[in-house]
Parts: sequence; C-alpha cells; structure tokens
Amino acid sequence: MSLVSRDPVLLTPGPLTTSLQTKNAMLRDWGSWDAAFNAVTAKIRKQLLDIVNGHETHVCVPMQGSGTFSVEAAFNTLVPRDGHVLVLINGAYGKRMAKLVSMMGRKVTIFETPEHVPTTSQDVERLLSSDTTITHVGLIHCETSTGILNPLQEIADVVKLHGKSLIIDAMSSFGALEIDAKKVAFDAVIAASGKCIEGPPGMGFVLARKSVLERCEGNSLSLSLDLYDQWTYMEKTTQWRFTPPTHIVLAFQEALNQFFAEGGQRARLARYTKNYETLMAGMNELGLKQFLDPGIQAPIIVTIHAPDSERYSFKDFYNRVRDKGFILYPGKLTQAETFRVGCIGAIGVAEIRQAINAMRDALTEIGINEAIAA
Amino acid sequence: MSLVSRDPVLLTPGPLTTSLQTKNAMLRDWGSWDAAFNAVTAKIRKQLLDIVNGHETHVCVPMQGSGTFSVEAAFNTLVPRDGHVLVLINGAYGKRMAKLVSMMGRKVTIFETPEHVPTTSQDVERLLSSDTTITHVGLIHCETSTGILNPLQEIADVVKLHGKSLIIDAMSSFGALEIDAKKVAFDAVIAASGKCIEGPPGMGFVLARKSVLERCEGNSLSLSLDLYDQWTYMEKTTQWRFTPPTHIVLAFQEALNQFFAEGGQRARLARYTKNYETLMAGMNELGLKQFLDPGIQAPIIVTIHAPDSERYSFKDFYNRVRDKGFILYPGKLTQAETFRVGCIGAIGVAEIRQAINAMRDALTEIGINEAIAA
Repeated sequence: MSLVSRDPVLLTPGPLTTSLQTKNAMLRDWGSWDAAFNAVTAKIRKQLLDIVNGHETHVCVPMQGSGTFSVEAAFNTLVPRDGHVLVLINGAYGKRMAKLVSMMGRKVTIFETPEHVPTTSQDVERLLSSDTTITHVGLIHCETSTGILNPLQEIADVVKLHGKSLIIDAMSSFGALEIDAKKVAFDAVIAASGKCIEGPPGMGFVLARKSVLERCEGNSLSLSLDLYDQWTYMEKTTQWRFTPPTHIVLAFQEALNQFFAEGGQRARLARYTKNYETLMAGMNELGLKQFLDPGIQAPIIVTIHAPDSERYSFKDFYNRVRDKGFILYPGKLTQAETFRVGCIGAIGVAEIRQAINAMRDALTEIGINEAIAA
Repeated sequence: MSLVSRDPVLLTPGPLTTSLQTKNAMLRDWGSWDAAFNAVTAKIRKQLLDIVNGHETHVCVPMQGSGTFSVEAAFNTLVPRDGHVLVLINGAYGKRMAKLVSMMGRKVTIFETPEHVPTTSQDVERLLSSDTTITHVGLIHCETSTGILNPLQEIADVVKLHGKSLIIDAMSSFGALEIDAKKVAFDAVIAASGKCIEGPPGMGFVLARKSVLERCEGNSLSLSLDLYDQWTYMEKTTQWRFTPPTHIVLAFQEALNQFFAEGGQRARLARYTKNYETLMAGMNELGLKQFLDPGIQAPIIVTIHAPDSERYSFKDFYNRVRDKGFILYPGKLTQAETFRVGCIGAIGVAEIRQAINAMRDALTEIGINEAIAA
C-alpha cells in the first residue's frame, strides 16, 4: 500500500480525484439554516444553470444522495402516473433507468442496442412513430459502463419534433461535454457533484424545464425524491427541504469555482481530451486495445480489452497498479474481459503518464510483456 | 461575521459541530470499489450494531442521503404493499413520517398528541386493540421539533405483545440515549451520520431485524431507497450499490472511533446531559423558560420560550448571537414563539457557557434585560 499521506490517484468515473482546495472546503461545519450556507446553495444553483445556458428556460434543483437518486427523482416527478417512458439502453445505466421507472409503476418501453452501438436518431424516429402513447424519452448521454457517447443533439431534435419530453442522464458528461439548453431541447438534465465538476460525491442535481416542473405537483410517489417539493420549498425558503450534506455542498461550490477559473466546459473538455489521448498512446505502447470505435468514444472513461494472456486476472493487475499509486476501474461487460480507465478528475497528462508506466510495470511483473516488447 | 478561520459553534440538531479530526478524514479521495474503502464500510456497519447490541438479531444497512431518505427506505422496504402503518405523532417529524408512508401508497392511521405530550403505551395499547388490521407502528424516539422524548421501552413492549412490527425514527437520539436490541423489540431503528455520532451529514442507516428484512424482496417502489436490494448487494459484494459519499463515510468512521474512545453511549449521554444542565442553568439566569416539562425533555435539543418583549424578533436575536460565534436553531411550534438550542455535537460545557454569555450580550444589546437584572 501507498503511504497514508499520499493516496492513490483515482482513475475512476466518480468518486474521482478532487483538488486539495476542494477537499479543504470540507474542513468547516456550517449550519444548514444559516444565510451564509443558503447563499452557497443559491450560487451553486446559478452556476449549474450557467453551464447549460439555461437561465431563461430551466431551474436547478439539487438533491441529496448519489446521482441515481436524482435520476429517480426526475422520473418520479416529471412523468405523470399514466406516463409512458421510452428508455434507450446500451449499458448498465440505461438498464438501471428502465428498472427504476418500472419500479415506480410508470409504463416503460425499452430499446436496447449492443454496448458498442449508439442509439441513433433514426431508431428514435422509428420508435416514436410506431408508438404514439410514449410521453417521455430517457437517454444516457455518456454510458459509463463502456464510455460510449450517444448522439444527444440528433436524438433531442427528433424527440422535440414528436412533441415528447426528453430526460437526459448526463452523469458522466456534464461539465465536460457541451449541453446547451438553447440548442438541445430537454425537460431534464441530471448529473452529480462527484463527476466532471470534480467535487466529492454525495449530491446530485436536476436542471428541469421550469414550465414543465411547475405542473408536476403530486406526481411523485416518494417524499424524499419529490423534485417539485424540493424545488418549491427551496424557492420559498432558500433552504434545502431535508438536511443537506453541508460539507459536500461547500466542496462542490469550491469545485465549481475552480471549474469556471479553469475556463469552463471547453477548458475541461480540452484537459480530459489530452488525458484521453495520452492514455490511448500509452495503451498502444502496451499493446492494449480500446473496446469502442474511437468515433463513438467520449474522453471520459475508456474501456480497454484485457491482455490476451492466461496469466492475467483483473484482481491481480488492479492490486499491483493500486500499490503503485493508481486506482483502475473494473470492466462492466459480459461478453469480453475488459477494464476501465477514467480520464476525469483533478488530474492531467502527468498523472496519466505515471499510470501508464505503473500499468507497464505491473504487466512486466505478471510476465505479460510480449506485446510491450514487440 | 466571525473570521473565516473560526466558524461559529453549531447549537443545532444536525448538521452539528464535528471534531477537527473527523473533518480531517475528508481530506482524502478514496475509490468506492477499492477494498480499503469497503473495509471502512464493513467496520461502520459492525460498530453501529455494537451500539444497539444487535449482532444476533439485526443487520445494518447504510443509505445515501439525509436521514429522511433512510426513514423512507425503511418503510418502503419493510412494509408490504398491503401493510397498514400506525404513525404516532407529536411533532414535525412524526407528520413527515406519516406523509412519506402515505405517498408511497401504504395505508396510514395517525395518532397525534400535542407537541408537549408524549405518546403513552396506553395510547398504543388502545389503538392496536381497536384496529387489528394495523401491521406496523412508526415512532419518533426523540422529536427534534421540540426535543420531547417518547417512552420507547413501554411502547415497544406493547407493540411486541400485539405481535406488530415497530419502526423507530431514532434520528436525534441514536448514540446518546440507550437503545438495546436485547431489551427493546424493534424491526428497524433509523438514524443518520450527522447527529449524536457527530459525523458530517450525508448518509443514514437502518438497523433492521434480519429475519424480517430477508422477506422484504420486491416491496419497495423505489430503486434508490430499496433497503433489501442495498443490503443483499452489500452482503454479496462488500460495496455500496450506487456511488457512496466516500468522504462522508470516512469521516463517519472517524467519528465512530471517537465515539467509542469517549466511552460509547453512556459517556456521550453524560456529556450531553452536562451540556443540557449547563444550558438550563444559563437560561434560568437569563429569565428564559423551557417549553417542555423537564421530565419528558431529552438532553438533545431544547425548546426555549422567546423573551416576552416587543423588542424581540428571532431573526435579530439569531443574527446577533451568530455574530458572536454561535448558531441557534429556530423554533418549530405554531402555538408559541420559541427558539431551539442543541446540546449535541463535539462541544462541552465551555462552549455552552460561551453561548449563554453570547445570548446575554445579545439580549442586552436589544434592550431586553429586565429579567436578567431581576
């Protein structure tokens, strides 16, 4: 294990490596009722709307819990009891979305493509034309289980043309990939604190179309996850309805400030893209192949085929790389042995390069170095 | 405002003042998939069962979000779809419990006493005898809206006699007041990280009877709040189902270690009792009166009658006391002007004494000092 004073770099899609400045913000206890804390909440809500250019059309509702809690809150509140949701699936998070919508008793239709195949706007066009009872479409922007990017703009255009409501799980893309409310028609974009904004995990948020959310009173079957109630209470009182994760909120605020200081979404995307390109060059050196076609790969998290060797086991490889200071992420595919490497977090090319070297050393130790030598 | 380097002491019922050691634990980024993190989760789960002496009968299931999320998870999972819940109410948290059970579509009967009147075991005996369709009883141990203590042991005995299931919201009592699974028959005790264990807010937990939880697959209408799914996944993988608030988990672990180092529940109760007695002596000096009969007052949070003066407004008083370094809590009663003072958190007699002096100075500034002089 590494020294306690220097934790491993997280190459994971959240929790990820945050800056020391962000973590330092958690060294304070703030009252959740106090005006100073409520001002932080208000500023976060404003900044998140800034990112999607959504002040004219949308409102920001933060929510306690992991990102999935916010996804569930969005569907529970925005979809009426007699709604019908089309969920577009090409990975674990799409499946999870369909499951949670189904559990809350809303009608669900799923459309599933293989994990390396994006949903296309033609698919959505066909699906919406053939079943006009569909009221909402649920889309995963970047599917963390592989890193695949679905064509948001094209799908949003089709959904809008059909007059349906689009709910986007942008968990692992928000802040890194452009989502502009003036270009992309959506009723909700959902993400969380511990992803590309580089805060600690513990809260999510929904950017919801105001004119839609206003009509959603009484839809939710869950009190905790009632987005309408959370929103109206916050508007009225400036406070969170139930105890907020104050330390996480303060750190998220700090992370947002750093996000804007870095140059916002474009700058963040540029850094992650460099991380990704550096990683890919390194994987090439090590003879390791990318699972996805680069054309549909977001520079967020990359799925890599495991070395084709009987000596390889993910656990052994993971432990060796961790002991060298880097936390990898397991694959989530059934059909192929893979592992994943995140390009996100408060890290740059130097850390990615260090991680490549650690992976090289680990493979050499295991005795998998034919490809490397070649 | 105070200097940034010295935040006000929180005299609030959570978020509360945590120790620097606890906050320091958040200065690390840990992977949620890593064995080191999973070992922390496992240790927390064990320690929480230690507190209620529940290893033989109960299991601990942590849950993301505020305490209310865990309350909702407990009811959503432990109460079958055709269950019937009797909720005992004498304050805002009892009302909230009834509301969330009702929203998830379970049948609810409420029994409400005034805010200064505890529910008695005779009440419960009568209610369970008169309606045998009731399957579950929901009780708030210590109602944070006033600080009133309900007679847990006596009510639990009656519920057990009737063969019904008891679900206890022990949010503000857990760790400070004794709850022993070998003496008190309960199917669930619910609390959260940011209360008497003195961690930061951001996660809750349910101590559920294993033989009951085992039979609860498929009850929950919510994926995020499905306690059965959370439990079985954690048992199988050692991991949280969805992204855990890693920094909060680490800090909560640190807070639990300090809890046991201090001497556990008895030591904590002794400290809070001293805080409470010191506070009451001070309020007496200031001529301020306690709302509740001391016999039913838990030494957790105290409701105080506002000074009987036209010059008094809570906002003004609050701001003045805050600027002197102490955060008070507003009252939550409709029938009387009150404020609340928490006795919990990583504070002792010194801080309580300082707060009393700050309140005295504030009242003098406002010009309310007749009683003080008297």
